[in-house]
Amino acid sequence: MARGRISRLSVRDIRFPTSLGGHGSDAMHTDPDYSAAYVILETDAEDGLKGYGITFTLGRGTEVVVCAVNALAHHVLNRDLGDIVGDFRGFYRQLTSDGQLRWIGPEKGVVHLATAAILNAVWDLWAKQEGKDPRRLLSCIDFRYITDVLTEEEAHEILQRGQVGKREREEQMLTEGYPAYTTSCAWLGYPDATLQQLCSEALKDGWTRFKVKVGADLQDDIRRCQLIRNMIGPEKTLMMDANQRWDVPEAVEWMARLAEFRPLWIEEPTSPDDILGHAAISKALAPLGIGVATGEQCHNRVIFKQLLQAKALQFLQIDSCRLGSINENLAVLLMAKKFDVPVCPHAGGVGLCELVQHLIIFDFISVSASLKDRMCEYVDHLHEHFKYPVRIKKASYMPPKDAGYSTEMKEESVKKHQYPDGEVWKKLLAAPGD
Amino acid sequence: MARGRISRLSVRDIRFPTSLGGHGSDAMHTDPDYSAAYVILETDAEDGLKGYGITFTLGRGTEVVVCAVNALAHHVLNRDLGDIVGDFRGFYRQLTSDGQLRWIGPEKGVVHLATAAILNAVWDLWAKQEGKDPRRLLSCIDFRYITDVLTEEEAHEILQRGQVGKREREEQMLTEGYPAYTTSCAWLGYPDATLQQLCSEALKDGWTRFKVKVGADLQDDIRRCQLIRNMIGPEKTLMMDANQRWDVPEAVEWMARLAEFRPLWIEEPTSPDDILGHAAISKALAPLGIGVATGEQCHNRVIFKQLLQAKALQFLQIDSCRLGSINENLAVLLMAKKFDVPVCPHAGGVGLCELVQHLIIFDFISVSASLKDRMCEYVDHLHEHFKYPVRIKKASYMPPKDAGYSTEMKEESVKKHQYPDGEVWKKLLAAPGD
Repeated sequence: MARGRISRLSVRDIRFPTSLGGHGSDAMHTDPDYSAAYVILETDAEDGLKGYGITFTLGRGTEVVVCAVNALAHHVLNRDLGDIVGDFRGFYRQLTSDGQLRWIGPEKGVVHLATAAILNAVWDLWAKQEGKDPRRLLSCIDFRYITDVLTEEEAHEILQRGQVGKREREEQMLTEGYPAYTTSCAWLGYPDATLQQLCSEALKDGWTRFKVKVGADLQDDIRRCQLIRNMIGPEKTLMMDANQRWDVPEAVEWMARLAEFRPLWIEEPTSPDDILGHAAISKALAPLGIGVATGEQCHNRVIFKQLLQAKALQFLQIDSCRLGSINENLAVLLMAKKFDVPVCPHAGGVGLCELVQHLIIFDFISVSASLKDRMCEYVDHLHEHFKYPVRIKKASYMPPKDAGYSTEMKEESVKKHQYPDGEVWKKLLAAPGD
Repeated sequence: MARGRISRLSVRDIRFPTSLGGHGSDAMHTDPDYSAAYVILETDAEDGLKGYGITFTLGRGTEVVVCAVNALAHHVLNRDLGDIVGDFRGFYRQLTSDGQLRWIGPEKGVVHLATAAILNAVWDLWAKQEGKDPRRLLSCIDFRYITDVLTEEEAHEILQRGQVGKREREEQMLTEGYPAYTTSCAWLGYPDATLQQLCSEALKDGWTRFKVKVGADLQDDIRRCQLIRNMIGPEKTLMMDANQRWDVPEAVEWMARLAEFRPLWIEEPTSPDDILGHAAISKALAPLGIGVATGEQCHNRVIFKQLLQAKALQFLQIDSCRLGSINENLAVLLMAKKFDVPVCPHAGGVGLCELVQHLIIFDFISVSASLKDRMCEYVDHLHEHFKYPVRIKKASYMPPKDAGYSTEMKEESVKKHQYPDGEVWKKLLAAPGD
């Protein structure tokens, strides 16, 4: 039984000045300050538990998401948590279908990011209060706009089949963890020396799967990919990520030039909205043995539905903060299972690893039941700001042990990084030249 | 030559309490307060001209768009107008590809609406200073993500062919205007008596094309469509609009039931993101003689590109405030011409008629050169708040005669409707029960 009435929603603008070191840089986002709109829900229950939720942003614009969270707050305040999760599908639809607010979405961009932050906090709070019944999960999903591909009955059957061998998979996760790959070595803004050093350290730490950012300059890409492939050797796995830099024909030509480095996938070759474009690229690159991966900027389940229908991707990358929290990600995991496409979540950012580990381990235990062609992104920074950071062992995510959705930040970190009046930003904004 | 440096950008939250009368209500937006984020650009030029731009919203959430306009303001302030329009494509891309802000879009939702409001103001200012050279228009278009369907060379050829017979078409517009249809008679929230009265008045005023809102309740729809078809007779044109209410199979079944009233199109049968869904619906309804129309919530040129590629619509509805102003709408008009799909703009709202008349008359004169299956939406309210309101004659839009983009509001109207401190809102918010 969920307890308490939501008595307070607060939201804060938290930014980390990651652009100073080129961390997170790619062909389209050259100077990201990894940031978050950070939502805290409080109830009047005596347990004193709070729900923490975030959505990830890149610095400027976080204040816009904060504004949208406040615009949605009236749907949450003074509601009983029991009523919210008792009709979670209805609550989800209330947030996403507000007759006035939906115009500025719908279910996309700023309002959907704000929705995710709020829902992530609801899940955190609920999960701290009680364990989850997988069957009940279905009642959290809004099937609107996807019934032509997945009905509630089919989803139920998938989850039923997921019960077989579940205990063994749980055991496997507890001992081995979920396989990960690293994006930490090869941000676009890193000089070759940094790249080499980080790559060599990662190899020592047991990493076997590496992602490199590409797309800004072909000669640079060739040099960097050569360098990494040489360092990791022919057996280990290399992925490439263009962060939407190309048009469709350009993506095909460019990747033909990088094929010699044998990437497993090219990620975000073009606009995240271009389903038919991704399908054309997939078709063209299949003979080269290169798959297409996308998802971190796919804004809702309707886009994922079509990517699957059109055979537009070979690796599906869910995001814990862009889609409408667990509710919408569940729908996507189930559709991916139906189409037999492996899910390899987007992570990194601020808190994305903390969040998405829950989703992908659930996917393995209860939905896909497979690790074939599957791995979860990992980026080694900003975890120190979280109260329950991820644990990586032998390049694998070890299952989280604390109740909740792992998104509570340390109060000290929040205070220092609050924008614009935290200590870190006060200093930076006062610096000459800014 | 464009004159002046942008010295000030101000943005205001303007709302009209249209929900009180059920105006604008449909199956998904039951209580809209027609609103706008209203941008004013000032320069240091001696001419004293200002640029006025809006984006349309439905009430709540306007403050989020206002916040996003402010987040984008640094790209506009202190820039020479000459530099902006001298590399308008570059400026467009700067707004839409800000390395931090694009994360909360990209090119969709709140940030794209804010981009539209700013760009609409730039066009208004520029147009007041000087006439436009159609060839120069191409340099305003960002072809990123659409070159697989339309290259700059092809666009140029289309505009070249559009020169033939241009003068005659200009003359035709000046004397006859651009054909319109009315949505004013049949909002979903209107009782039958209101519907009948408005329909009878519209017939007297010479309207021959009518749109009715459907999608919430089938029996209601049957009754209302019967009523309107009876009133307008078998010859006049009837369109239906479901405002995204249905899933794909549901849309097909529902429309099979309404086919007897012979609608020309069903508008927004399902999610605006569902390209393949619209294609499936188009295919299923073609034998019934019903076309599919969509566009008012299609968030950028990439979605329109795919709708055309997939044969997902038979009528393309551009929106002057959701796409990135004239820049992006030009790209869509040119793609529609290439695919030979008629453009029938979305209008109504606040100022949409004022804006979109420019686009559709330009389309006729310089791009499509045809009125076949074409008409522009018209809604008869809120025009009194504009300094240069549209002029309708015999159910047609008469070309605007004043320089600029027709979006300047009367200062008196702005003051009264500013949210939350304008006179109208102060009174409403103080009323008991609110």
